[in-house]
Amino acid sequence: MNIDLLDKQYFNKPFIILANGQYPSHPAALNKLHTAGTIICTDGSANKLLENGLTPNVIIGDMDSTTVGQDSFKGLYVKISDQDNTDLDKALEWCKVNSLSQLTVLGTSQLREDHTIGNLMLLANYSEELDINFVTDYFTITCHHGKRSFTSFKQQLVSLLPVEDIKSITTEGLEFPLIDELFPLSSRGISNRATGHQFIISSSGKIWVFRSHSE
Amino acid sequence: MNIDLLDKQYFNKPFIILANGQYPSHPAALNKLHTAGTIICTDGSANKLLENGLTPNVIIGDMDSTTVGQDSFKGLYVKISDQDNTDLDKALEWCKVNSLSQLTVLGTSQLREDHTIGNLMLLANYSEELDINFVTDYFTITCHHGKRSFTSFKQQLVSLLPVEDIKSITTEGLEFPLIDELFPLSSRGISNRATGHQFIISSSGKIWVFRSHSE
Repeated sequence: MNIDLLDKQYFNKPFIILANGQYPSHPAALNKLHTAGTIICTDGSANKLLENGLTPNVIIGDMDSTTVGQDSFKGLYVKISDQDNTDLDKALEWCKVNSLSQLTVLGTSQLREDHTIGNLMLLANYSEELDINFVTDYFTITCHHGKRSFTSFKQQLVSLLPVEDIKSITTEGLEFPLIDELFPLSSRGISNRATGHQFIISSSGKIWVFRSHSE
Repeated sequence: MNIDLLDKQYFNKPFIILANGQYPSHPAALNKLHTAGTIICTDGSANKLLENGLTPNVIIGDMDSTTVGQDSFKGLYVKISDQDNTDLDKALEWCKVNSLSQLTVLGTSQLREDHTIGNLMLLANYSEELDINFVTDYFTITCHHGKRSFTSFKQQLVSLLPVEDIKSITTEGLEFPLIDELFPLSSRGISNRATGHQFIISSSGKIWVFRSHSE
């Protein structure tokens, strides 16, 4: 369903997707939910949101997990039956089609590890077209290639993990700098630290950037 | 330290590494700990093991987290200071050098997501030289390329995730078969099911295979 058919004013920023991993507990993540303009749930996560006293604006998925019925739900109920992709994939595709391009996604991790990795692969794939932050109880996670700067705080934990074998990466403003280095699939970019209020990454290939919360 | 210098009989099979993610709670994972011949802890995981009433045989890492002191510890204490790799990387490298080639690794996931992904990348890198199973509260996770068969049970949850873009993958014995297909980085291989007592995967590139526990 394309929401051009609906009143677009219905959807207010900021747009939050709640995926069906562990419900957030860190204040940085919970705050995103409580200040959301629009909360989009992926199937079973609607149950968790309701149990926590909040109501989804949109529910998207194959609807084999949520106990919220289409008839009783006052928001937008988008049933997409397709076994080739996950409910978060369906939700991101729906956001892309409907030009909801700035997204914070919660509940992407913990519980089943296949979902945690699969969700990060979705972040890598959609990050070329959408501006997506995953916010977990530990990190804000984004995915990039090319050059990008980030605001930071001194001693902020910053982990870099390559999505693919990277031919050249250079960083500025991190405690352990990388200078035009190869960055193959490995765990060696874990637990770097920001040295000040900004760091810059220039990467020829896609990397996941994990930034710890400020408190 | 190379244990050729020591009495190799000291190390009994099965070899278990406990990494510093969440301590296991599923019986399938706990049983591995309780029937271990040798338990190797990565730095801080030694504390968790001792809190749970078990004693490590080996502790490996940069030793910035464990409260176990070298003087009081009766097992093998292998301090390796190297900020380029994680404690699990150090432990796997040590096992490789010392020909401990069949390894079950616990505590690889949950908690910090950068460690979860980094640990899976280590599995991908070391699986060419070592026979490694990650056992979590949800899955046994392995990494392969080429052709391999797996014992299974009907309706066992099997998720396949590509480590790299795969040019050709074929499966037998899974509910949603793949036949000489491209398998790019995505979440589409999640939540397949075994149809019987065996399934076979032939893949031209590396994949992670997630198999659910039998109970």
